[in-house]
Amino acid sequence: MTNDFYCDEVLSGKVDVTKIYETDNVLAYYHTRPFYEVHIVVIPKKHINSLISLMDDKDHELLIELMEVVSQVSKKIIGEYGASRIVTNLGEYQESKHLHWHVAYGKKIRE
Amino acid sequence: MTNDFYCDEVLSGKVDVTKIYETDNVLAYYHTRPFYEVHIVVIPKKHINSLISLMDDKDHELLIELMEVVSQVSKKIIGEYGASRIVTNLGEYQESKHLHWHVAYGKKIRE
Repeated sequence: MTNDFYCDEVLSGKVDVTKIYETDNVLAYYHTRPFYEVHIVVIPKKHINSLISLMDDKDHELLIELMEVVSQVSKKIIGEYGASRIVTNLGEYQESKHLHWHVAYGKKIRE
Repeated sequence: MTNDFYCDEVLSGKVDVTKIYETDNVLAYYHTRPFYEVHIVVIPKKHINSLISLMDDKDHELLIELMEVVSQVSKKIIGEYGASRIVTNLGEYQESKHLHWHVAYGKKIRE
């Protein structure tokens, strides 16, 4: 096992996920072990360590595609619940070393 | 008063802020009433309602400049503290209707 849940489990197809939105290079799906009442994860399909790596790589096309999906998913959540929060963690706060944006609504249901 | 603290108070110069990083179109400064032990705000200098507005406007140059500053500031915080969290709020979660990214480290010190 590496510490990349997204490549190892989700993108490999080992874990079934409920997709909410997908483009050529980006996938948005419902978190398999949600931390919030509504918890979606948006990831690049290729391996990128973190937001800092993406910016260091100057992969601006992927940045735009990623943030477009984050925005579309957020619109859907706001349409249903009225609000959403967009989060990414870095350094010691980032558990799985594959860039992932959390799109969340509601109370924290798990630490 | 509008509900745009950033245009009304910060970018107008009414409130003094401690800048941490600045480009032509983006400003990063220490939050004047921090919610976390370390709390920086990154904003576009022109008025943009939210991340969704930025993506709807297709202002990709500004998106890239903004996320580069977020990344640079995060590197600095990780260098000092080992971790950082990047957050933006939308809909009812967004208090001031001017796009702002929070770059934070440490415990929540205020609700």
